[in-house]
Amino acid sequence: MKMYNDNPLRSISWDDFQDLPPEEKGAYFRRGKRPYHALIAQQFDRPMLERLCQTATKVRRIAKTRGGMQFLRDLLNEKRAMLYFVQPSTRTFLSFYAACQILGIQPAEVRDTSTSSEVKGESPEDTVRTFSSYFDLIIMRHPAGGFAERIAWLLSNTDRPVPVINAGSGKDQHPTQALLDIYTLQRSFENHGGIEGKQIAFVGDLARGRTVRSLATLLTLYPGVKQYFVAPESLQISDDIIAVLQKAGMEYVVTSDFSSVLPEVDAIYMTRIQDEWDTAEESRLIDTSPFHLRPEHLSILKPHAVIMHPLPRRKEIAAEIDSDPRAMYWRQVRNGMWIRAALMLTIFDRENEIDRYYDDLTA
Amino acid sequence: MKMYNDNPLRSISWDDFQDLPPEEKGAYFRRGKRPYHALIAQQFDRPMLERLCQTATKVRRIAKTRGGMQFLRDLLNEKRAMLYFVQPSTRTFLSFYAACQILGIQPAEVRDTSTSSEVKGESPEDTVRTFSSYFDLIIMRHPAGGFAERIAWLLSNTDRPVPVINAGSGKDQHPTQALLDIYTLQRSFENHGGIEGKQIAFVGDLARGRTVRSLATLLTLYPGVKQYFVAPESLQISDDIIAVLQKAGMEYVVTSDFSSVLPEVDAIYMTRIQDEWDTAEESRLIDTSPFHLRPEHLSILKPHAVIMHPLPRRKEIAAEIDSDPRAMYWRQVRNGMWIRAALMLTIFDRENEIDRYYDDLTA
Amino acid sequence: MKMYNDNPLRSISWDDFQDLPPEEKGAYFRRGKRPYHALIAQQFDRPMLERLCQTATKVRRIAKTRGGMQFLRDLLNEKRAMLYFVQPSTRTFLSFYAACQILGIQPAEVRDTSTSSEVKGESPEDTVRTFSSYFDLIIMRHPAGGFAERIAWLLSNTDRPVPVINAGSGKDQHPTQALLDIYTLQRSFENHGGIEGKQIAFVGDLARGRTVRSLATLLTLYPGVKQYFVAPESLQISDDIIAVLQKAGMEYVVTSDFSSVLPEVDAIYMTRIQDEWDTAEESRLIDTSPFHLRPEHLSILKPHAVIMHPLPRRKEIAAEIDSDPRAMYWRQVRNGMWIRAALMLTIFDRENEIDRYYDDLTA
Repeated sequence: MKMYNDNPLRSISWDDFQDLPPEEKGAYFRRGKRPYHALIAQQFDRPMLERLCQTATKVRRIAKTRGGMQFLRDLLNEKRAMLYFVQPSTRTFLSFYAACQILGIQPAEVRDTSTSSEVKGESPEDTVRTFSSYFDLIIMRHPAGGFAERIAWLLSNTDRPVPVINAGSGKDQHPTQALLDIYTLQRSFENHGGIEGKQIAFVGDLARGRTVRSLATLLTLYPGVKQYFVAPESLQISDDIIAVLQKAGMEYVVTSDFSSVLPEVDAIYMTRIQDEWDTAEESRLIDTSPFHLRPEHLSILKPHAVIMHPLPRRKEIAAEIDSDPRAMYWRQVRNGMWIRAALMLTIFDRENEIDRYYDDLTA
Repeated sequence: MKMYNDNPLRSISWDDFQDLPPEEKGAYFRRGKRPYHALIAQQFDRPMLERLCQTATKVRRIAKTRGGMQFLRDLLNEKRAMLYFVQPSTRTFLSFYAACQILGIQPAEVRDTSTSSEVKGESPEDTVRTFSSYFDLIIMRHPAGGFAERIAWLLSNTDRPVPVINAGSGKDQHPTQALLDIYTLQRSFENHGGIEGKQIAFVGDLARGRTVRSLATLLTLYPGVKQYFVAPESLQISDDIIAVLQKAGMEYVVTSDFSSVLPEVDAIYMTRIQDEWDTAEESRLIDTSPFHLRPEHLSILKPHAVIMHPLPRRKEIAAEIDSDPRAMYWRQVRNGMWIRAALMLTIFDRENEIDRYYDDLTA
Repeated sequence: MKMYNDNPLRSISWDDFQDLPPEEKGAYFRRGKRPYHALIAQQFDRPMLERLCQTATKVRRIAKTRGGMQFLRDLLNEKRAMLYFVQPSTRTFLSFYAACQILGIQPAEVRDTSTSSEVKGESPEDTVRTFSSYFDLIIMRHPAGGFAERIAWLLSNTDRPVPVINAGSGKDQHPTQALLDIYTLQRSFENHGGIEGKQIAFVGDLARGRTVRSLATLLTLYPGVKQYFVAPESLQISDDIIAVLQKAGMEYVVTSDFSSVLPEVDAIYMTRIQDEWDTAEESRLIDTSPFHLRPEHLSILKPHAVIMHPLPRRKEIAAEIDSDPRAMYWRQVRNGMWIRAALMLTIFDRENEIDRYYDDLTA
């Protein structure tokens, strides 16, 4: 098989590609060492993550001044992005939208399939190919697992390939959420020895949250990390993730005893009950109140522990906790914008322009 | 109580703030002498109004040339604004949208709560705080009276406050409509001695139009203005506004005799029946036709009188009147764009850049 | 009758204008020799089409570099456009949206009348006039035939006329689709003697596709073109188009024999069944499969013939045909963006800036 280094998705048929395990797919999403498509959490290796976090931090610091913002706005001002979101999402949508605006990428959106040609009997592939014709980047959220991969493969095999970013597909993948979580951990532990060797607890609905699944997987790239999965039995982390951790030789604990875990960990990742996946209101039968973080817990938490949450939250975290300096979830929201900006810069191979400006700034 | 001059909403609890009368709230919406939040009509004093009108006129004149437009587009091009409109509104929405574009502010919008995280059980406060995380300014329309104030208070008490503009809340406040009305009067009377001492008639549904309530209140800042409230009894201006006028020592007339008022006034402010607030189709029982402005009225109107209407109109003003030089309602629409641009420049403290460019232009 | 050369729609009453035949309306949509409004296919003469195609090609070539894109983005960056689309359309909408972005025109959109003031009893004319107040160009799609013309006439008779582009109205007109089709033919035959003298087949639902009607009409401007109309009897081209061809002295063939036409033609224009216009599911009774283009047809098609389709497609063209070099429909999509950019440049009289930059580029 011939490998097209500049466009590896041309080297493989769709059927063969689909049969690959996730950890082998990443090679097909790259151009050289850079990510070109961003489709699954498993495609990112440790050097890529380090580089993305570094770029995000530079962008964030450059953005603090009016002159810096104006520099950023010229960086990709010849590009246009299509945000194709056919599933409800305002949070992720706006995060990408703002990241585009920061870099001068002009965004356009398709959010409601009822206004699209799909009603005229067009195939979903034709629909996205048509929309992509006008743009330089597709950012898409779609209910069908694997659909973003399908589009990336399809466009790669036309004479006008454009990069595709998966902004959430089906129950499984939400890779830029995983990137923002890694970036939040990296920033939080920047002056405390980094992510390696830290103890991190996931709490809540671990069975159905793609966020937790992706982050737990990415954390296997950080030696010495110990993961705690704290949930009622019926919402515990699934066996395939445990298998990933075991294969990577990572330490982990599966438990339903929240209060014993609290004093141990450097980070608590809270999640809400994902009852939109319920088939028969089964979530109502589960008492999740023992898995809520309450003000009285703050005193037993380590002084430098961080509290994260992908949001939206319900009652998992009391509002009074927002003002605790360890509450990171609002900062986490903004981190999403910065890491997404970094990702787009990387896809278009412009990080070096950031490096130069930043070096001048700090020289 | 310590007063945070740079962020006075930090100095007061939400409960205490809510108990303040409107005329005392203004001090909490300022940074120094500038408006920082724009939430209620009562927060604007006379010098602020004069300055806003002056800035609006400069922006409008600068915008007449390609070079001027390009200057304007760089003025706030490092800012992003979120237009959070969860109530139907295209007119006000587009006016703000265009005003942002004129100044280079990059807009993003949330208009349909069904796409937002509110469906996932998030509190409205969390929702807006999340969205605000990505932006430098929130422009919001919300059905709940006081919600914009709540958000301004809440964001002021985080480590990332951003200004909030109320684009209409509940039945009560629509402060930028009041600003555009003042600006239209100011422009109309620019060469006729200004607003002071003029006679101004409000006609139509005065009971339920927040527009009239706000403008009548602001006009108490202009000595000598005499206000006429012309409406069928059941739609007359409410007592609280009359009390405001009395307290300010303003002249006023409450009447249902439209034709006797017509020859007296310098401005007629027509309004439509706001039957969206009906609870039992009560508007159908009222004959409003005696309160319509008809072509035959034009001859008894003063030669320099101006005809205003916040739009949309139904039959209150016959279409033939549009071509009369005294018809100001289409110009009023554009004035809304200019005064909103002026307001955003003021909030971000950039009027001085306008002044400098304008001085060079007219030197 | 006095003719306002700078605004001819001021010279005529709405009633008189409506009575004009299409070929006489064009004079009213011009400013000098340029199109000012773009409302019907018949308004374009041959020199205008040549000039538009030339400008589109220059824009397309300039857009190939980052510097070129940045030049383009400054060309109309003092303008704002309103995309008023009250009929479902994503394809045409995004094409205009992207074309605006390429030229630096800032777009705003109104797509859903339920959010507009029409619900408050406003007339459609008032609604569009209000929206137009904030913008420099109206691009509109509306279900009512002639509504775009009505708005162009109306705005021309105010003191703030702005150009109007028809992006599809009723069953009849979609002039920019016709422009992109002409541009695709012009590009395809650029090195094969141009459009004149070519044989072009229209296939499918010719009775109800406004696309075919417009293009067939425009092709009368190209001497020697022979047109084939290939369709089941009940979906054949209507008599009024045949009359246009006869009057212009063009050759044409009306047939239902697809396979005999295939080897003859230089271009095949495929269309889908427009069953959204069905009144009683009558399309279901027609067997259209004999009018599908199949892979086995490729061998009997001329080596330089081009295959076009306005998209969306259903089964008229098998997906395997996409990779044939004669398949032009995906390129056709992008051509729509380029020709719309050229049209807007022409409306605003900026083609000469394109010419200068292009001359420098190729000098």
